[in-house]
Amino acid sequence: MDDPTTAQAGTPPRAEVVAIGDELVTGQCVDTNSAWLAGALGAAGCAVGRVTVIGDGQADVVDALRAACLRSRVVVTTGGLGPTVDDRTRAACAELAGVRSYFDEAAWRDIEALFRAMGRPDPSKIAPSNRLQAEFPVGSRVLPNRCGTAPGFALEVGNATLFALPGVPHEMRAMWQEQVVPHLATLAGGALHSRLLHVIGCTEAQLGERIGDFMAEGAATRVGITASQGQLTIRVLGFDAAQVDAIAGTLRHEVGALLVYEGHHSLADELVQRLRARGVSLATAESCTGGLLGGAITACPGASEVFLGGFVTYSDAAKARDLGVDPELIAEYGAVSEPVAAAMAQGVAERTGARIGVSITGVAGPTGGTPAKPVGTVCFGLSVDGAISSTERRFGALGRELVRQRSVREALLQVVRSLRGID
Amino acid sequence: MDDPTTAQAGTPPRAEVVAIGDELVTGQCVDTNSAWLAGALGAAGCAVGRVTVIGDGQADVVDALRAACLRSRVVVTTGGLGPTVDDRTRAACAELAGVRSYFDEAAWRDIEALFRAMGRPDPSKIAPSNRLQAEFPVGSRVLPNRCGTAPGFALEVGNATLFALPGVPHEMRAMWQEQVVPHLATLAGGALHSRLLHVIGCTEAQLGERIGDFMAEGAATRVGITASQGQLTIRVLGFDAAQVDAIAGTLRHEVGALLVYEGHHSLADELVQRLRARGVSLATAESCTGGLLGGAITACPGASEVFLGGFVTYSDAAKARDLGVDPELIAEYGAVSEPVAAAMAQGVAERTGARIGVSITGVAGPTGGTPAKPVGTVCFGLSVDGAISSTERRFGALGRELVRQRSVREALLQVVRSLRGID
Repeated sequence: MDDPTTAQAGTPPRAEVVAIGDELVTGQCVDTNSAWLAGALGAAGCAVGRVTVIGDGQADVVDALRAACLRSRVVVTTGGLGPTVDDRTRAACAELAGVRSYFDEAAWRDIEALFRAMGRPDPSKIAPSNRLQAEFPVGSRVLPNRCGTAPGFALEVGNATLFALPGVPHEMRAMWQEQVVPHLATLAGGALHSRLLHVIGCTEAQLGERIGDFMAEGAATRVGITASQGQLTIRVLGFDAAQVDAIAGTLRHEVGALLVYEGHHSLADELVQRLRARGVSLATAESCTGGLLGGAITACPGASEVFLGGFVTYSDAAKARDLGVDPELIAEYGAVSEPVAAAMAQGVAERTGARIGVSITGVAGPTGGTPAKPVGTVCFGLSVDGAISSTERRFGALGRELVRQRSVREALLQVVRSLRGID
Repeated sequence: MDDPTTAQAGTPPRAEVVAIGDELVTGQCVDTNSAWLAGALGAAGCAVGRVTVIGDGQADVVDALRAACLRSRVVVTTGGLGPTVDDRTRAACAELAGVRSYFDEAAWRDIEALFRAMGRPDPSKIAPSNRLQAEFPVGSRVLPNRCGTAPGFALEVGNATLFALPGVPHEMRAMWQEQVVPHLATLAGGALHSRLLHVIGCTEAQLGERIGDFMAEGAATRVGITASQGQLTIRVLGFDAAQVDAIAGTLRHEVGALLVYEGHHSLADELVQRLRARGVSLATAESCTGGLLGGAITACPGASEVFLGGFVTYSDAAKARDLGVDPELIAEYGAVSEPVAAAMAQGVAERTGARIGVSITGVAGPTGGTPAKPVGTVCFGLSVDGAISSTERRFGALGRELVRQRSVREALLQVVRSLRGID
């Protein structure tokens, strides 16, 4: 019989993530932990087949965990380890394993120490319900939490190893790195390798026809395409690093000049790396994006070497006062126009002394559109060593946030392209 | 026998979401669609019990959909409707329903029309593989896609109605609103009602003890707590609006002064609403957050009425040049210090004429920390009608992005609080 939980030589162990919390199945929060864990499990050599998101009800949690433990060798849960009565992961795992819970004195001392470190030395100030967080199913290996009061635990359930981690992202990530990764190293073989190629300039269907021969189901190295915010990403995934590299190389040749960049980092990271490599400085002038372009650039390590500053000129007055845009230009063409975008880029480059100035001014919506400039109309300005240019894009009625995100991406892309002409 | 897919009078139909795509189970993308759909299903009167995220493999998709259709009355999928061979939702649904696929001429004409609207009038330029997107399982009701080339479909599978929607978020959302909501209105009763109370100033455990009596499992109205980025949110959920309101009222009384605000909107939205109600203007000066505070404020409808602009002064030179911060102050106390934060807030208020100026300067990490100012140290300045104040917070080693997000939240919170003293 084919038992999926029995590791075969050379076959990566199958893994699943179970994210627990009413806030996730009601739409109150986006589940970011599962994507992070899926990536981390792949890097640790596991093949992730499924993510299940389930509410706090104990019966539902037990049901989801039971199915996951039957299908997979490694099951990772997040959430439900807090100190309140809606935190039922501990009880659900005990029920699943058919064991009682016990109070772990060492874990409790760690929790008390954490409270002391947080400046609450008086033990009577610790809520009694925090004691719940030191209860574990019998047979658990406790996973200490250096960043918070919720310890995790590892428990064998049938052929599966279940890791219960907290839902707070930075606590979960630290516990993963320090407690789970060393354990998985004994289970898994090589890591899952992946290459990402980001392309622009064709439709998804056209790209699919160009590289369709590589996308057959069941291949050891899996090739896929994702469309997101006007950019296509080709994904090459497999446990054989040499094969992944070889296929990525062929695909790179296949897409040719459509390739914008390669790798798991963001477009903003790519831009900052290229600016640093060339020693080129950048400044931003933003209207409808309100600072998101500067926020994206400063998310990248090393941005301070090349980013000279940004201006959020949300009003006409600010465009004139802070960037020196001629008010008559705004009166004649409107704040959302190529001439004003060009003047903003020129102004921010001159004011900061940056070699490249980039600007965004647009109608993000939902209101403010006109027949001539419908919602989704966004103008971009670029000043490169004093040479000024501008473009207009129409993103359509994507909604305010998507128009803003597309605008940030377009501005980053324009700067990346402009660097091709710079040494 | 208890059949979960048979709607009982007064019981909301059970619903599930199945998100499909290798990019989701490998961690390449965060699945934001499922949270959006979970919220939308609740608003449409369904009780969402589970979200399953699954790769592109057809057997896995069929397996996940079969289980979902057995458990739930309504199943919504996203993804796998593109034109490439890794898009297998159409084929998986046909296999699940045990039917063949057919080519839908009307849907194909819609796709051709969309290409024409996108400026590609030459039909020979449409990739032949786009024809795949007009193939549906026999028995489907086609759901036209106004925003993209991937039509969706609705299909009855056993007692369940399955809605297959595209994975591109704005296409999925438009299709949901226009095609799915009208259909669900005939299935479901009243909407799921929810109230959110956002509190600050106690631990999760302390809050849990204060309101634990309301959190029993199995209650018709469910009360839970979520901790996120230093803020606690109490969630009251149920299909009986009057009961939800009554419990929210009692909880509001229970938490008293810990309550920051109520509702499903963001803290930035709350701030912009309060600024508009009082006619108070705001300007921002940011260092380590690089524009994210301005970005958060301008995400809110009506921000242009009160937001006078922002400065991203990432370097010492920019702080002096754009905000008038005395370079000697920076030399004496360092760029991350309360005196500099205060001077930045004063400078941005004076420069823009805003009644409130708020500033952020900090060490987001991963480098730049010192023993006196470790990574995670962030200083905030506030100028309210000329009265200047400053604070320092230590967020610890959360990682660069979380320190930046916590900083934005803290700045918003400080401005919200400062408004209590303003008419």
